[in-house]
Amino acid sequence: MDNQAAILEGRRTGLARSAVRLTGGVSDTARLRQLLEAALTALDESAVLRAGPLPAGGPDAVARRIRTAVDDLVPAEGIGEIAALTRFARVMAAESVDPTDPACQAHLHCPPLAVAVAADAVASVLNPSLDSWDQAPAATVLESRLVAELAGLVGYDPNTAGGVFTSGGTESNLMGLLLAREAVLAERFGVDTVRDGLPAVVLGRMRVYTSAAAHFSMQRSVALLGLGESAVVAIPVDHRQRMDLSVLRRELGRGDTVPLVIAATAGTTDFGSIDPLPELAELARQHRTRLHVDAAYGGGALFSTRLAGLLDGIARADSIALDFHKFGWQPIAAGLFLAGRSADLAPLARQVAYLNPADDEDAGYTSLLHRSLRTSRRPDMLKVAVTLSALGRNGIGELVDACHELARYAADRIDAHDRLELTASPVLSTVVFRYRGPRYPDAAAIDAINAALRRELLATGTAIIGRTDLGAESGGVRLKFTLLNPHTTRADVDTLIAAVVAAGDREAGR
Amino acid sequence: MDNQAAILEGRRTGLARSAVRLTGGVSDTARLRQLLEAALTALDESAVLRAGPLPAGGPDAVARRIRTAVDDLVPAEGIGEIAALTRFARVMAAESVDPTDPACQAHLHCPPLAVAVAADAVASVLNPSLDSWDQAPAATVLESRLVAELAGLVGYDPNTAGGVFTSGGTESNLMGLLLAREAVLAERFGVDTVRDGLPAVVLGRMRVYTSAAAHFSMQRSVALLGLGESAVVAIPVDHRQRMDLSVLRRELGRGDTVPLVIAATAGTTDFGSIDPLPELAELARQHRTRLHVDAAYGGGALFSTRLAGLLDGIARADSIALDFHKFGWQPIAAGLFLAGRSADLAPLARQVAYLNPADDEDAGYTSLLHRSLRTSRRPDMLKVAVTLSALGRNGIGELVDACHELARYAADRIDAHDRLELTASPVLSTVVFRYRGPRYPDAAAIDAINAALRRELLATGTAIIGRTDLGAESGGVRLKFTLLNPHTTRADVDTLIAAVVAAGDREAGR
Repeated sequence: MDNQAAILEGRRTGLARSAVRLTGGVSDTARLRQLLEAALTALDESAVLRAGPLPAGGPDAVARRIRTAVDDLVPAEGIGEIAALTRFARVMAAESVDPTDPACQAHLHCPPLAVAVAADAVASVLNPSLDSWDQAPAATVLESRLVAELAGLVGYDPNTAGGVFTSGGTESNLMGLLLAREAVLAERFGVDTVRDGLPAVVLGRMRVYTSAAAHFSMQRSVALLGLGESAVVAIPVDHRQRMDLSVLRRELGRGDTVPLVIAATAGTTDFGSIDPLPELAELARQHRTRLHVDAAYGGGALFSTRLAGLLDGIARADSIALDFHKFGWQPIAAGLFLAGRSADLAPLARQVAYLNPADDEDAGYTSLLHRSLRTSRRPDMLKVAVTLSALGRNGIGELVDACHELARYAADRIDAHDRLELTASPVLSTVVFRYRGPRYPDAAAIDAINAALRRELLATGTAIIGRTDLGAESGGVRLKFTLLNPHTTRADVDTLIAAVVAAGDREAGR
Repeated sequence: MDNQAAILEGRRTGLARSAVRLTGGVSDTARLRQLLEAALTALDESAVLRAGPLPAGGPDAVARRIRTAVDDLVPAEGIGEIAALTRFARVMAAESVDPTDPACQAHLHCPPLAVAVAADAVASVLNPSLDSWDQAPAATVLESRLVAELAGLVGYDPNTAGGVFTSGGTESNLMGLLLAREAVLAERFGVDTVRDGLPAVVLGRMRVYTSAAAHFSMQRSVALLGLGESAVVAIPVDHRQRMDLSVLRRELGRGDTVPLVIAATAGTTDFGSIDPLPELAELARQHRTRLHVDAAYGGGALFSTRLAGLLDGIARADSIALDFHKFGWQPIAAGLFLAGRSADLAPLARQVAYLNPADDEDAGYTSLLHRSLRTSRRPDMLKVAVTLSALGRNGIGELVDACHELARYAADRIDAHDRLELTASPVLSTVVFRYRGPRYPDAAAIDAINAALRRELLATGTAIIGRTDLGAESGGVRLKFTLLNPHTTRADVDTLIAAVVAAGDREAGR
């Protein structure tokens, strides 16, 4: 053995000694068991350091405590696996928000199902990547089938629909806007946007119609696509927070514009309101444009017998965004993009020598590369498939209904309270309201009190509730419960409301 | 209790009975332990069903077996958590590729570290979402600090650099292209692209310079941005597969174009080659354009004393893409986007009433919303932080070096083999070659034999090796080992080479 070979051999032996560092794949899970046990023990031990649903003391105190616990994040020498895992699991447990705590009701941020967490760990161990068959045989087959079955659930024809799991509503909505851009410009102007880019003839004229209550990321995505946020026509909402059809009709009637897409919302973040889908589908048809539906939140209604009717007409949309990390109780990420016609995904197609050469595809080695904006892609579908199999559609529907009922209960209690003001009846599982207090100060003062009481609840580690702003005309700051935890009880809701009122009284008295 | 209340109460009780379904957060990990144990047991039991690194029989057989094991994916009634988890874990174990098997050496698809898998499970349990402080106090602090420290590692000033964890190289590269588009159009034309979209004056003139060996997703991202793939100038590569500087200079010298960005590659997918970064930085400066570096693969060299010099000049780039799910041994997704100046991220900024109202930000409730293209965002940084802490930079470097040495060993053996032809010396950890066989048929026949022998190895479940295509001028189909498993031995490499030759002989003899 020459000198170089001896060095290499020595290194190899050194690595063999540390072989426990890799998972050992599915044939050696002993080390992984040990590490998971260490992580869970650390979680158990440290959660008690946190008295409530979030760490107390406010942002500076949290940052300081974390700095004390973990200093150098990129050290030259490691401290070992168990030590590192324990240290970070403790910090995370002590300094995180607990989405399963009944006083955590702020965002579309669900407590995850244990079964989904376990299924996601299986995905991590095997680490399939969905950009080629030979990195993910099982996941490729399962994702294709699950997408088809879920397409059937929204009312699409599973044989002709297409879709892909995504990182969430933002990516799914971006895909909807992108494919609408490509389709409309091809149909109306014969342009191959993928090849040639945006044509001069449409600049400044392309329009994306959303409601004023649509998700903010629509603006960001429209800018990403090169259209500029000024291409977004934010249609005012009616008293039910739904897109005002008369205004939309007028806007669509302008002769000088190029309507790319009506981007409807089925479940707005604040009010859960659902745009009038059948009418929007009809308008899209009349004006030779597309209909995309952001059902990231409202899509959960598909599982509820009671609420499913709210989504009538959704199958007439050209594309739909769903999120199983909202109603669906998955750890992030678990987004889904669906297109009524899989052919609409054609602009994403790429033939890549190292991933999906034509002769391999001909031989049956199917790739899902052409469905996604990403390349390496984790099989987020696995946790969704396991959850649907474990609970069934009805089990998910039961959880959705429980949250809806809680929201109705909370709204009733708020409406009956003399120091609170309910803003609207819940549609799905959000409740928007504000503290009015005993003394009725001016509008700016009410805004400040509501914002301050929410921060007080955060700083003391008491509760995490949401807030929003209706804008100056409509009366400013509002508080919000987003009820996504079906194990919350009515008593929990009462306690939370009492905490809000007490904090409001304190802030009003300052 | 009235009738409605009784119904609600009954439902609530029903849910309380099934409370085990949620993780119970950090205060009740018992159910999660039970489910993880079921999943790992299923993995252990089912891996033995697969004799080699992938399921045998080809795509149709895999699809058929999966259909037999799991039929209805979206049933009305569930089968229970343990049953569902066991069923899917078994299917995944039996019908997946095992990235830890030494005969799995095809893609930038790493065997994940057990410690990273465990850390990722902690992220799932707590489910923080990085779009607001009040969903992710600890994760917000840790990501900010980790991004700064990693910015320091590439040579940026940690105090002024910015960045964000992403879903992978494709998203990171998209961000680099997007921010270059916004910056160059603002500087040269005074255009606010975010607000107004692409201006007519630049249409058809914007250019993105990459090497012909750059990642294919650059084209897709350029199309997404509205520029059209025709905006990509694919600069030919030299004999070392690096961007040809003389051609690039000529292209940049054309007076009629608007150079948005030079998108360099540090570690091409096939050859691991690294574009001449210092020269590209100088050209970018001279031509008032930007330099983005796709170091998704080559970034691993930062951890290796021996290889780090390959990345000299990277800190002069305006932005960089790194991937810890390649060299870094993380389960997907673990991408990182870095910008030398955090101010360059400004076009992503959004003020959203329900996520980051100004008065909350003033009060210290920092949001990372303005750094990412996504909204809900899983803390992929956690597994990276735990891994870096466990192994240290040197521990990661040791793994990188082991893969590099394996690649050199494999190249030597291939070069010495009379039926194999080495295409180029390895730069990082890939080895490109082809089977020549004893009889030297024509070029098309050699291509077909190489493609067929790879499929034969797949169909029999023997090995997963990569392939690529150099294009007709350069001689077509090539095979590839992508050595990302540091526990692979020289004997494993010998076995793999022997399997390739044997399959080649069979295909050539047909």
